[in-house]
Amino acid sequence: MRPTEESALLTDLYQLTMLQAYFDQGMEATTVFEFFVRKLPQRRNFLVAGGLEMALDFLEGLHFSADELDWLAGCGRFSAAFVKSLVGLRFTGEVQAMDEGTVFFADEPILRVVAPLREAQLVESRIINLLQFQTLVASKAARVRLAARDKLLVDFGLRRAHGAEAALLSARASFVAGFDGSSNLLAGMRWDIPVYGTMAHSFVQTHASELAAFEHFARSHPAATTLLIDTYDTEAAARALIPLAHRLRADGIAVQAVRLDSGDLDDHAHRVRAILDAGGAKDIKIFASGNLDEYAVQALLYAAAPIDGFGVGTRMNTSADQPYLDCAYKLQEYAGLARRKRSEGKATWPGRKQVFRREDGAGQMAGDTLTLEGDRQPGRPLLATVMRGGRRVEPSPLLAAVRAHALAQLDALPPALRSIDNAFPYAVEVAAPLRDLARQVDQRRT
Amino acid sequence: MRPTEESALLTDLYQLTMLQAYFDQGMEATTVFEFFVRKLPQRRNFLVAGGLEMALDFLEGLHFSADELDWLAGCGRFSAAFVKSLVGLRFTGEVQAMDEGTVFFADEPILRVVAPLREAQLVESRIINLLQFQTLVASKAARVRLAARDKLLVDFGLRRAHGAEAALLSARASFVAGFDGSSNLLAGMRWDIPVYGTMAHSFVQTHASELAAFEHFARSHPAATTLLIDTYDTEAAARALIPLAHRLRADGIAVQAVRLDSGDLDDHAHRVRAILDAGGAKDIKIFASGNLDEYAVQALLYAAAPIDGFGVGTRMNTSADQPYLDCAYKLQEYAGLARRKRSEGKATWPGRKQVFRREDGAGQMAGDTLTLEGDRQPGRPLLATVMRGGRRVEPSPLLAAVRAHALAQLDALPPALRSIDNAFPYAVEVAAPLRDLARQVDQRRT
Repeated sequence: MRPTEESALLTDLYQLTMLQAYFDQGMEATTVFEFFVRKLPQRRNFLVAGGLEMALDFLEGLHFSADELDWLAGCGRFSAAFVKSLVGLRFTGEVQAMDEGTVFFADEPILRVVAPLREAQLVESRIINLLQFQTLVASKAARVRLAARDKLLVDFGLRRAHGAEAALLSARASFVAGFDGSSNLLAGMRWDIPVYGTMAHSFVQTHASELAAFEHFARSHPAATTLLIDTYDTEAAARALIPLAHRLRADGIAVQAVRLDSGDLDDHAHRVRAILDAGGAKDIKIFASGNLDEYAVQALLYAAAPIDGFGVGTRMNTSADQPYLDCAYKLQEYAGLARRKRSEGKATWPGRKQVFRREDGAGQMAGDTLTLEGDRQPGRPLLATVMRGGRRVEPSPLLAAVRAHALAQLDALPPALRSIDNAFPYAVEVAAPLRDLARQVDQRRT
Repeated sequence: MRPTEESALLTDLYQLTMLQAYFDQGMEATTVFEFFVRKLPQRRNFLVAGGLEMALDFLEGLHFSADELDWLAGCGRFSAAFVKSLVGLRFTGEVQAMDEGTVFFADEPILRVVAPLREAQLVESRIINLLQFQTLVASKAARVRLAARDKLLVDFGLRRAHGAEAALLSARASFVAGFDGSSNLLAGMRWDIPVYGTMAHSFVQTHASELAAFEHFARSHPAATTLLIDTYDTEAAARALIPLAHRLRADGIAVQAVRLDSGDLDDHAHRVRAILDAGGAKDIKIFASGNLDEYAVQALLYAAAPIDGFGVGTRMNTSADQPYLDCAYKLQEYAGLARRKRSEGKATWPGRKQVFRREDGAGQMAGDTLTLEGDRQPGRPLLATVMRGGRRVEPSPLLAAVRAHALAQLDALPPALRSIDNAFPYAVEVAAPLRDLARQVDQRRT
C-alpha cells in the first residue's frame, strides 16, 4: 500500500469530478492559483511561511499508482477515457513562492501555481494541507521563541500531534521558527534536527526508589543526564539528589539538569534552584515542561523563574488557541483572463500577484505592498520562481539556512509585532494596478 | 525511505534512552500501561474511543529497519550492544481494550498494554498519538451527528487537517461517529467510506458563465450533480438554474442539489428553497458548508433552515474548540507491583483496571464503575483482550460494525448527555478495591 502522505488519492473527490468535466470539455488552458491567508487569526500579529519544501516534493512526485487508477476506474464516477488520461499525469507547471520562513500577512500569496488546468486544480487539497499546517505551527512556534527570548526550547509535541505527519512536520516547522530541537527521533534522522530527551515518570516508577532510578539513568547516559524530579515530591527529590550528584561527579558523571513537569512551575523552580544552589549543585540546570505555550513561558520569564529551558508540546504543535488558518488556494487566472470570486466575506484579489517589502534604515520591516506581478513598487519582491517544468529550479536550501532566514525575519519585525499581545496591524497596501484589475474583472461579468 | 506512519523512530528520544538504561540494568519484567483521559474537556459530555484498529496495526508491525538502527548506532547516545538488541525487537505482549466506538469518561482506560518492559515503554508515544487523535475527532464528530439529527453529514476537512494522516484518519473517525461519508478519496479507497463531492468555485470561474459551468458539470456527472451556487450571487444563480434544470431534466439529467458555502446560510437556504420551489424544482436539495460545527448546525436546525445536508470540515476534524485531550499512557504495574505517580494534579489510579457499565431497563447507560481487573461489579465489563503474543486474537471488525456500535452507544446515552451543551456529569464510581490499592501503593513508598 502506498504511504498515505504520497497517495494521489489524498484529495477531495471534487477535484476528480471537476477534472472529468474539464476532460470532457477539452479545457486545458494555463491556470493560475495562489495560496494565501484571508485574515490573520485573532492572536497572531504575523505568520511565518511553512511547508514549501514538502509542497515541492509533492508536486515533483505527483502521479497515480496503478492501484489508485484501478480504484478510480471501478468507483463508477469516471469515464474509462478520463481515467486512462490520468495514467501519465505529472505536474509540469511552475511555482512562484516566498522563501520558507518568511514573515507574511493577510492576502499576501506565499505560493503560486501556474500549470495546465487539471494539474493546477488537482493539487489544491494537498497543497493547502501541507502549507496551512506548517505555516500554522511555524507561526505559533515563532511566538513561543519570541516569548522565551534566548532560553532553550524543545518540541515535545509528538504524542498529541494529529497523527504521524503532523508529529514529524511540526518538529521541523518549530525548528525552523526558532526551537532548538525536538524529542522526535524521526525528525533527527530525516533532517539532523537536534534531538532532546529526558525520562518519563514510568522510569522512576519501575524502580524501587527515585534515587535508584536517577543513578541508573545517569550511569547509562553519563554525557546527557536530565532527571525528572516530580514523580512524587519535587523538593524532596531535589534534596535527595544532591548527595547522589556529588557521588556521580566523583565518578566523572555530571547531572546536567532536572526536569519539572507539574504543579506551579515558577514556585517549584525557585525552590529547587535554592535547594540545588545550597547543596553545591549550581551547575545543574532546570528544565520545565507541562501545558506550556507562549503565554505560560512569558509569565515564567516575567516572574524570573530560574528555568533554563522549556519543553513545549501540545499547545504549540496543535496551535491550540487557533488550530487552523482561514486560508485558501484560489483561482486567479484562467486562459489569460484574471478571475476572482465575490462570495460574501470571501472576495479575493484577482491576477498574479507580487508582494514588495520595504525596510527602514535599520533593516526593520516598514510596510508591504500587494500588487500585480510585473508591476514595480518600492522595496524587495518576496515571491520568486522556485519550480519550472515541474522541477525545482535549484536544490532546496539546507534546513539550517531556512531557520536562519526565519530568525532574521523575526529580528526584522517591528518591535510591536514581536509582542505576543495584539499589536496595531502591520501596513499592507494594495497598489493601484491590482485595484484596477479587480474593478475590470467585476465589470467583465454580466 | 520508510513511510512516516510506519517508522519505529516516530517516537520520543526518551523512550530509547530509557530502554538503554533498562538494557544496562537487565530490567525486563512484565509491565502494564493504560491509556486514559484524565479529564473531559470543557465542552464534552462524553468521549468516543477511536483508533484501536491503527494502534493494533502499529503493534503488530513494530520493528526497527536497518536504516533506523544505523542512525541510532551513529547518533552517539547508545551502546552498540543495546542497538544490536533492538534488531529483533517485536511487540509480543497483550492488549485489553474497549471496542472502538465505545463511549467513555475520565479515568476509564480504553486500552491496556501488558508486555515486557521495553516493548510496553517504547510504544507509548505512537499509541498516544494514534488514540488521542482519533478519539478527539470521533468525539467531536459525534456531537455534530447529535446536533444534525438525521441530516446528511459529510467530512470536508482534508485540506485543513494537520497533515496527511490526520486527513485520512479523521475521515475514518468521523464516519465511525456517524458521518455519512467524506470528500476524501483515499478514505474511500482504503475503507469503502462513501465519498461525496461537488465542485469548487474555481470550476465556475474557469467558465465564461456560471450557467455554462453548471451545464458542463451536469453533463459530465449526470448521476451525481451538486452545483455550487455562491461564487457571485447566490439567489441570482438559483434563479438562473431553474430553466437549465428543466432543460437537463428533458435530457434525463437530474440536478440533485445546490451547495451554499458563504454568507448567512439560514437566510440563503430559505431564499434559495423558495426560488427552487417556485420554479418547479422541489426535488433539488440544498447542501451547506463553510465554517460549520455542531453549534452552527444546531442553530440552523433550530431556525428550521431548509438544508438537507452539511459538509463539515476544519472545525470538526481539528476539533477546533478543543484540539487535544488531557490524556496519558501511564505505568500501572511493573514486576507484579501496582504503581502510580502522585505529581500534583496528575495522580493516577494504580493497577490493571476494568470498567463496568450498568444499563437501565430501556438499555440506557445508567452509571459506570471503575475497579480492578478481576473484581466483579454490576453491569457489563467494557475492556476485553484483543491481542495476545503480539497478534490480534480475532480479525478486526468491519468498519460498518464499528460505526453501528458507535451509533448504538450514542443512542444509549442519557438524554442530557446527548446535548451539545454541558450536562451534569455522568456517574463514574471508583470501587473500593481500587481505592484500597491506591492507598496501599502510597503507603509502600517511604
